[in-house]
Amino acid sequence: MRVLGVDPGLTRCGLGVVDGTGGRGVRFVAVDVVRTSSEAVLTDRLLAIGDAVERWIATHRPDVVAVERVFSQQNVRTVMGTAQAGGVVALIAARAGLPVAFHTPSEVKAAVTGAGRADKRQVTAMVTRLLGLTEPPRPADAADALALAVCHCWRGPMLERMASAQARSAELARRHRARLAAAAKGPGR
Amino acid sequence: MRVLGVDPGLTRCGLGVVDGTGGRGVRFVAVDVVRTSSEAVLTDRLLAIGDAVERWIATHRPDVVAVERVFSQQNVRTVMGTAQAGGVVALIAARAGLPVAFHTPSEVKAAVTGAGRADKRQVTAMVTRLLGLTEPPRPADAADALALAVCHCWRGPMLERMASAQARSAELARRHRARLAAAAKGPGR
Repeated sequence: MRVLGVDPGLTRCGLGVVDGTGGRGVRFVAVDVVRTSSEAVLTDRLLAIGDAVERWIATHRPDVVAVERVFSQQNVRTVMGTAQAGGVVALIAARAGLPVAFHTPSEVKAAVTGAGRADKRQVTAMVTRLLGLTEPPRPADAADALALAVCHCWRGPMLERMASAQARSAELARRHRARLAAAAKGPGR
Repeated sequence: MRVLGVDPGLTRCGLGVVDGTGGRGVRFVAVDVVRTSSEAVLTDRLLAIGDAVERWIATHRPDVVAVERVFSQQNVRTVMGTAQAGGVVALIAARAGLPVAFHTPSEVKAAVTGAGRADKRQVTAMVTRLLGLTEPPRPADAADALALAVCHCWRGPMLERMASAQARSAELARRHRARLAAAAKGPGR
């Protein structure tokens, strides 16, 4: 399974591609950071991010796109830009026919370092080790994008099993309700 | 000038089209609200909003898309959904080759009612009157989208004049700096 991880942001948007090779196996494919100037108008920044994600999907042909779920604890101005960029990333991926998964920063940190409150330095160090890189990916947004992709390689299969179990349980509940409704109507009506 | 006003939101996204007929003249063209279920996954909601905006652009052929600028004073969860939807709307419009303008809620209220702190009821009443509608657009998101479009009909030309004046002043400053730099180098070098 090939995962494109995206750490959305207007100023720096991290892009990282990782192959999940089964079990805990992960292999580095590519990493980069798209930058847009804070002096550019918002729409041009969103266009640049959308174009970059589209190009990466075309080049690396991921099976799924993992996006950082925006979190409300940061500065509100930053959160809004991140959310706008994240919406664009999800749209571009979905329009390319790819499933989109969201992981929170603490899910990503917990997956790669074992601790949900790990700092950026620890995340970068673990990503460098897990992917056998000769030097740490810079800036932190690049490391975060790779961490997201690694996180999805590990959490994705579990999330899919949970989603199909939930769908099965919802279907059983629906059938149960339908039987109850049929019984309540009675045979005569 | 035909304006598509969009009041972005995941649950309800207002779409309103208005023609600016010169001066303060405005004419109603169309209004609707796209709804997506809060039970649907985020990506499907963004796709539905993106598709609707694309359809409205194809159908109504606006010259410009006016989007409500997300404001940080609301509930943070709502703001994030609104920002994600707003990012998608701006991207779709820009990819269709249209200019995108943002107006804050208070700019819109001030434009249509004369008061930046007008309530939803007042905005709806003024939009109904300005556009000569036989009944008030419902829900409020529909009225807000039309108010945005009206606001852009009135503010747009002024914003364009300001932008070109700014560009001209930046160009003059650039030439001035270039002359100073040339003078500092002196004729001999």
